[in-house]
Amino acid sequence: MIVLIPFPGLWFTSVVYSVETIQSWCYQQGTFMSEKTLFQRIADRDIPADILYEDDTCVAFRDIAPKAPVHVLIVPRDPIPSLDHLTEAHEPLVGHLFTVARQVAASEGLIRGYRTVFNCGEEGGQEVPHLHLHLLGGRQMSWPPG
Amino acid sequence: MIVLIPFPGLWFTSVVYSVETIQSWCYQQGTFMSEKTLFQRIADRDIPADILYEDDTCVAFRDIAPKAPVHVLIVPRDPIPSLDHLTEAHEPLVGHLFTVARQVAASEGLIRGYRTVFNCGEEGGQEVPHLHLHLLGGRQMSWPPG
Repeated sequence: MIVLIPFPGLWFTSVVYSVETIQSWCYQQGTFMSEKTLFQRIADRDIPADILYEDDTCVAFRDIAPKAPVHVLIVPRDPIPSLDHLTEAHEPLVGHLFTVARQVAASEGLIRGYRTVFNCGEEGGQEVPHLHLHLLGGRQMSWPPG
Repeated sequence: MIVLIPFPGLWFTSVVYSVETIQSWCYQQGTFMSEKTLFQRIADRDIPADILYEDDTCVAFRDIAPKAPVHVLIVPRDPIPSLDHLTEAHEPLVGHLFTVARQVAASEGLIRGYRTVFNCGEEGGQEVPHLHLHLLGGRQMSWPPG
């Protein structure tokens, strides 16, 4: 798809870009077309979701396209675009997502185990450019992991 | 398999257990049959491995049964048995494994993306009872993740 980006009063600087080009540019910059990512809108309760846990730093809710009997996303409120954008300052926050995962797994009754997954970038299968941890369980997970 | 656990001088307290029972008990306790886990022995250079990165807290080395062109394990030196054994005190360490993953992914040329996986327990597919992060890349990862 092609879109026209107009600059009011400066029609001669209007540029035609493909959506893919804009998405790629935004991904590289760590910024995105809307002000809030999908997951920020869920965390802010702008969009409904089946929220299982939340605190000051993250929110956990069920994936709308579950791939296991239990499939939960754990998302930091800070809209870090991906693992590639992590700095040392994010380490406690990222670790916190896993103690939350442990708590959610326990509350969901996953006493036989579970798997956690971060996808990063296109080949990793990342679809939303806001860091999100997948927690899957309730069935035997196979190997390889995709 | 059945094993006899003798108590010298106290033969009457010797007990016959199945290996599965002992492994299950050890897993629940977070303790294991040998003093060091396989991954501790790799980290301590008792067992050779293709080590890509190491620091005071963790070591990264290639999986000996790779499931992608790049398949690296990132293992804390602290022998935390699994995600189920994490406490808040572990959060910075667990987060650190991901900044190491980002660095290893970059040094392995995974500019198109990658996936990270923790398996926990039997249904999660965990095989070694020492927390270890799988980093996979170099091909398109599919969905679901196992």
